Amino acid sequence: MTHSQLDAVLDRIDADLDDALERLFAFLRIPSISTDPAHAGDCRAAADWLVAELRLLGFDASRHDTEGRPMVVAHGDALSPEAAGPSLLFYGHYDVQPVDPLDLWRTPPFEPRLEDGPRGKVIRARGAADDKGQLMTFVEACRAWKAVTGALPARVSIMVEGEEESGSPSLVPFLEAHRDELTRDLALICDTGMYDPETPAISATLRGLMGEEIVIHAADRDLHSGMYGGAAANPIRVLARILADLHDADGRVTLEGFYDGVEEPSEAMRAQWDALGFDAGAFLGEVGLSVPAGEADRAALEQIWSRPTCEFNGISGGYAGAGFKTVIPAQASAKVSCRLVGRQDPEAVRAALRAHVEARLPADCRAEFHRHGSAPATVMNVDAPAFEAARKALSDEWGREAAFVGSGGSIPIAGRFREMLGMESLMIGFGLDDDGLHSPNEKYDLRCFHQGARSWARVLAALS
Amino acid sequence: MTHSQLDAVLDRIDADLDDALERLFAFLRIPSISTDPAHAGDCRAAADWLVAELRLLGFDASRHDTEGRPMVVAHGDALSPEAAGPSLLFYGHYDVQPVDPLDLWRTPPFEPRLEDGPRGKVIRARGAADDKGQLMTFVEACRAWKAVTGALPARVSIMVEGEEESGSPSLVPFLEAHRDELTRDLALICDTGMYDPETPAISATLRGLMGEEIVIHAADRDLHSGMYGGAAANPIRVLARILADLHDADGRVTLEGFYDGVEEPSEAMRAQWDALGFDAGAFLGEVGLSVPAGEADRAALEQIWSRPTCEFNGISGGYAGAGFKTVIPAQASAKVSCRLVGRQDPEAVRAALRAHVEARLPADCRAEFHRHGSAPATVMNVDAPAFEAARKALSDEWGREAAFVGSGGSIPIAGRFREMLGMESLMIGFGLDDDGLHSPNEKYDLRCFHQGARSWARVLAALS
Repeated sequence: MTHSQLDAVLDRIDADLDDALERLFAFLRIPSISTDPAHAGDCRAAADWLVAELRLLGFDASRHDTEGRPMVVAHGDALSPEAAGPSLLFYGHYDVQPVDPLDLWRTPPFEPRLEDGPRGKVIRARGAADDKGQLMTFVEACRAWKAVTGALPARVSIMVEGEEESGSPSLVPFLEAHRDELTRDLALICDTGMYDPETPAISATLRGLMGEEIVIHAADRDLHSGMYGGAAANPIRVLARILADLHDADGRVTLEGFYDGVEEPSEAMRAQWDALGFDAGAFLGEVGLSVPAGEADRAALEQIWSRPTCEFNGISGGYAGAGFKTVIPAQASAKVSCRLVGRQDPEAVRAALRAHVEARLPADCRAEFHRHGSAPATVMNVDAPAFEAARKALSDEWGREAAFVGSGGSIPIAGRFREMLGMESLMIGFGLDDDGLHSPNEKYDLRCFHQGARSWARVLAALS
Repeated sequence: MTHSQLDAVLDRIDADLDDALERLFAFLRIPSISTDPAHAGDCRAAADWLVAELRLLGFDASRHDTEGRPMVVAHGDALSPEAAGPSLLFYGHYDVQPVDPLDLWRTPPFEPRLEDGPRGKVIRARGAADDKGQLMTFVEACRAWKAVTGALPARVSIMVEGEEESGSPSLVPFLEAHRDELTRDLALICDTGMYDPETPAISATLRGLMGEEIVIHAADRDLHSGMYGGAAANPIRVLARILADLHDADGRVTLEGFYDGVEEPSEAMRAQWDALGFDAGAFLGEVGLSVPAGEADRAALEQIWSRPTCEFNGISGGYAGAGFKTVIPAQASAKVSCRLVGRQDPEAVRAALRAHVEARLPADCRAEFHRHGSAPATVMNVDAPAFEAARKALSDEWGREAAFVGSGGSIPIAGRFREMLGMESLMIGFGLDDDGLHSPNEKYDLRCFHQGARSWARVLAALS
């Protein structure tokens, strides 16, 4: 392709922005919450919406039903004669997080709108950043290439899942069953963030995840604390002890063998991170905090990029309504998740957590466990040529050197692509720290959506 | 009065049982949950129902509105010529506990019915035992006396409150404002239990109560544990530590000064308790437990009758819905209540609890406190003649020596009556350990309702 071709594609993206937003808004209006069975129909509708969109772009697109939420798979039809690069599989997810607490949303989560933000316009809706807005940056880049040249500059396939926010139970069997159809030279994933609002980024390391729900049972019914208080086991008290014992005074996780497989970043990576001049005060100040709360001897950037955690995502038991009820509950439960790094084994961590719980059960108490998703951490081979080509393309778009960064969140798919299909993943995303992912009032900067599409147009050119 | 008069009154109660049940069922159908503002209208309806009932019996009855739920006050009109005993104030409460978890009820909580129980028929409904069924035993005893003799055998006033299950916020100002109208020689309270299904009881000691809700705040919004996990303070973790630190390894409460004012039972009381042959295994086995969980060096009966506790009645924070949400919540909260004995000062305990929390707040966390009810423990003067007269009357009705017992639950009103109006309280109730107070499927044995009314008829005679 010629340089003027890329310029024409970028111009086309600029000119088409309003229509691209209309399309994204239609997508955002579908409340495709995968974790809640009540929204299964909405997930199907989101998948169908994508299939229709991709078919309009000439993709051979179809919805694949699973035991959970459907997958969307699409293959590009035409290839420009100049195309010579690796074949590509783009990945995104159409499902979104639940919206509670709903009363903290200033506007309804599934009525997307443009609002003024601190750095210009923002797109406000659940899923605006995670991941509908992000995945549509790639779709819009493809649309512009097709419109200008009649073809895509590379062999592009697309896979969009609908269970990313609920542990992807159908993913592994689906990859197994469609191994040939999905194996390409390189995966592209758009579900991560920029380093900061000016600095684009490629994620070089991703933390893994192990999620487990613990339910402590004591009496066979809720008891009156007047009649039984003092004599009856209280499952909230048992659970509090179990959770409190999971960290020592220095913030280290106490689980047996937890740090097995945890690796220190290379000197080169550490030097690059130091050069970023990360401002822990600003990062935490953004959400009303000031002091890194993790391991005492680790800087905040290490805590979120290269250290494992054990976090409590939810706890419940007894009376939680207005007023007071002097009850000793029959049960109490907690949702616990560990972020994993290096070569930590999610199932070994799960086993250690269960052993930690069992060892702390007094007489008359028993524990019930519910497994949620698990994925090991992923460390990318950033020396591969595609990584440097993409970094150059991103730097051109944003006028600032793109960074290889760590990502605190899990993108389990990158690990699955490597393990199961032998593919490296190029993770490029345009989210920002203040997007409010998984929180009320999620947003995506309009500039990120717009320059995100332009970035993908450039990356496609660079890889071809 | 003559012996045959009492016999006629007892016969009348027997003959009127079906109608008495109809009246109780009508009362139980009113969902008068005081702790939930949505049921304020139902509480008013329950108060109005009582006023109408008591007027039918010739009482000068009225509803007194308060800032919370209304009070009902009634004064008996006619006095039999033979009446010579102390003037009496009967106390009960028309409000009931919340009904959640609703899905554990086998029948709707406000659709009362007679069912077969392990020892005969039971009345099944929220409030059947606590306290509508109990308070109606006294009303039915008055009804029978009026029906048979045209008068009551003693000067009887009645006060029924509607905030007992929500900390009685209006009680103290109401007693202040109606001091003269309510001060009588002796209070009668029907909100306690029998020692066992065959052995009636008078409560000699009552534990007090101090309730406090603790809310721990960290970030100003819910955070994604991928992006912030490790660096951001987690309020569930902070709360778990605070709660876990409230007991030592031997089950003792660690609050500074907590055991100040705790007294050991007298030798005489301890001997009487020993004679009861309390079966801790059966008591706990009834609810699926086997081992006393309180202070390691105390027997189960001591733990519930004469030792203070610190219990966790509810905990919540983060995501509690189906599935998983990897969030670090902005806040977490717990409802904590202490049962108090002897001369423990509820407000000193509250202050110690708040200090315990404040001392464990890491950087970036703050605590918010909501006070709920407080009442000191009550120790009755069982040497007063009315206590022995009542014990004799109860023993006659049940054919078994009535016992002076401890009560693990709080009846704050008994303390208020003594402190504010200088009245001792004779606490006689007919609840049983398996009534499921504050739990799903609450019941009241039909025999307790029936013989409860007969018991009050006898006690009124014995005191006159």
